[in-house]
Amino acid sequence: MTDAPMTAQAASTATAGDILSSHLTAQAGVFLRALPQAVGEVGARPGTAVVPPVGTADLLRAVRRIGGLLHTFGATFEQTWAQESRTELRWLLNLLALEPGYVRRSARLLGALDALSGTEADGPGMLAGHAGAPKARALLDRQLTLARTRAHTSVLQELRSARLHALADRMTLLVSEAPLLEAADGRAGAVLLPQAAAAFTALTASAQQLPLQRASTPYGGDGLRRLGSVPPARGVVDADAALAADDAPWGRVRILVKRARYALEVCGRPTAELDELDEVLGRHQEAADAAVTAATAARTPRITPATAYVLGVVHADQRLEVEAARYAFGRRWPELPPGLDGWLEIPPAEGWGPSPAPRMA
Amino acid sequence: MTDAPMTAQAASTATAGDILSSHLTAQAGVFLRALPQAVGEVGARPGTAVVPPVGTADLLRAVRRIGGLLHTFGATFEQTWAQESRTELRWLLNLLALEPGYVRRSARLLGALDALSGTEADGPGMLAGHAGAPKARALLDRQLTLARTRAHTSVLQELRSARLHALADRMTLLVSEAPLLEAADGRAGAVLLPQAAAAFTALTASAQQLPLQRASTPYGGDGLRRLGSVPPARGVVDADAALAADDAPWGRVRILVKRARYALEVCGRPTAELDELDEVLGRHQEAADAAVTAATAARTPRITPATAYVLGVVHADQRLEVEAARYAFGRRWPELPPGLDGWLEIPPAEGWGPSPAPRMA
Repeated sequence: MTDAPMTAQAASTATAGDILSSHLTAQAGVFLRALPQAVGEVGARPGTAVVPPVGTADLLRAVRRIGGLLHTFGATFEQTWAQESRTELRWLLNLLALEPGYVRRSARLLGALDALSGTEADGPGMLAGHAGAPKARALLDRQLTLARTRAHTSVLQELRSARLHALADRMTLLVSEAPLLEAADGRAGAVLLPQAAAAFTALTASAQQLPLQRASTPYGGDGLRRLGSVPPARGVVDADAALAADDAPWGRVRILVKRARYALEVCGRPTAELDELDEVLGRHQEAADAAVTAATAARTPRITPATAYVLGVVHADQRLEVEAARYAFGRRWPELPPGLDGWLEIPPAEGWGPSPAPRMA
Repeated sequence: MTDAPMTAQAASTATAGDILSSHLTAQAGVFLRALPQAVGEVGARPGTAVVPPVGTADLLRAVRRIGGLLHTFGATFEQTWAQESRTELRWLLNLLALEPGYVRRSARLLGALDALSGTEADGPGMLAGHAGAPKARALLDRQLTLARTRAHTSVLQELRSARLHALADRMTLLVSEAPLLEAADGRAGAVLLPQAAAAFTALTASAQQLPLQRASTPYGGDGLRRLGSVPPARGVVDADAALAADDAPWGRVRILVKRARYALEVCGRPTAELDELDEVLGRHQEAADAAVTAATAARTPRITPATAYVLGVVHADQRLEVEAARYAFGRRWPELPPGLDGWLEIPPAEGWGPSPAPRMA
């Protein structure tokens, strides 16, 4: 907040191109510094830390922001270049996020299993001392370690690929000169505001199609008993398809929240509300993914009934976490739109400018 | 409310004995009329209706009220007689409630299973189309039908027993003349009020020891992951002991809510708040019992892993219902005590008298 007058002053004369270049330069710089560090981290033995190592985390953060900017303010960039860059960034994101994702999922599922089967006299779980718990734990651990190792191998291969080198070259170009269109010469407010507003319109439209009323009623039971509609084209309704269809709209809103959040960063506005929604939807996603892992593990041939029973409880527990995240979202969401409406009414010249980037100092 | 002035007038001169006798006469009358009807119903083939048949339901209602009155206003009755009567009424209650209880539990569990495994495209469950669902359903159905048949056989035997005839004789005595002590000659307010107040004090004390703060926070996860303390004397903590210890204080509060409710009825006061709490705790009890049934079924030898997995989900689903009931209770409870405090401040002569008993008209 202390540098708001300065950024407001800077913004009054800044062009859209100035603002976007400044952001992209900063993020591409993070990318280029984090890349060798991330390669080194992946090259080392895979750790078991829940948090991804520093280089990978920085790289993921930069990749998400650059991709978000190229999407939201796409009309300002050379189309083909922006489209190709987004495709390559998405490829790297999927590649890099996989292994830390499995590490987090393992921590989540084994933590849940340990809590559910805990035997501490002052707070045991509903599976306290169950014979199937150690077996289910070993099974989940084995399957997730295998998935993590596979992800590690594929990321190791790709980190030496020509594709990654080409992407690094793209990022180097971004530091020196982003391929902007003529439109970027316009005043920041006039050019960026409508594009940022479109990101919020898309978010609001998608969020309003969520079952927000049900989501803000605790214990609606919908996460277990009455999932969202399954597209009729799918034919036979099975649990996997039903759960995926139920989770999909929340996943879409999560992407839109991220885009809106990065757009706010470009506009130098506080993002606390969106940060919180992003965090809640991140939990939603991770619990939903963990539930799938538990359900899949339960289909392993030749497991004991006790193991399968425990996995059923773990699956339901993670779907309950999904419901809890939807409840948290449903309670927060209605407070958000007024704040965003207000944001759009602020005159463009006021409070505009590049966001403070302490990481770059 | 229309006959409030009349009862207030009547109460100003009524003795405690008048009030209690009027209630006991009414309830004993219900008992004696419902008994042959209930015997006839039990003698017929066991039905599958969720609601117990009329005679049995009436009988259970009268048994609960008479037992509650003899407990709460026990100081007004001949001690040995009241104690023996309560023991016999509790015996009949346990006997009669068993079979309808299994019918309700069956409806609850099979209903939950059907919702969880439903494949309707507009709202499938998380077990939609799961191969284990029909097997788990058949297993639960078979085990509950067996339990119900056993309960039916034992109630059939006991309904012809000398013990039941002796209890009916006790109830006949109650219609003509309840064995009251001298204390019952005192004014209704002076004698009954402190005893009713003691019932509320016991309820408040027990309810305040519940984890009400956690219970009014949705998705605290306590119903699955962090149960209440298990008495250390039990030694090894297993899931059954942990769940039973977690549910026990709620079961005690349920009994105390019923007693307070029946005490209010004697005092001619509205019971809507307590009716609602009683209903919520009834759901708590039934979900907890259903969860035990699912967990027990999962220990059946030679079931398939798919069956066990589905039973794990059903178990967690019922524990979630337990949590939902605690949440409902936790939200309602804090509003209650002020109403009860106010009740105790009303002068005894005002608003006292036998409750309107339309069933007796």
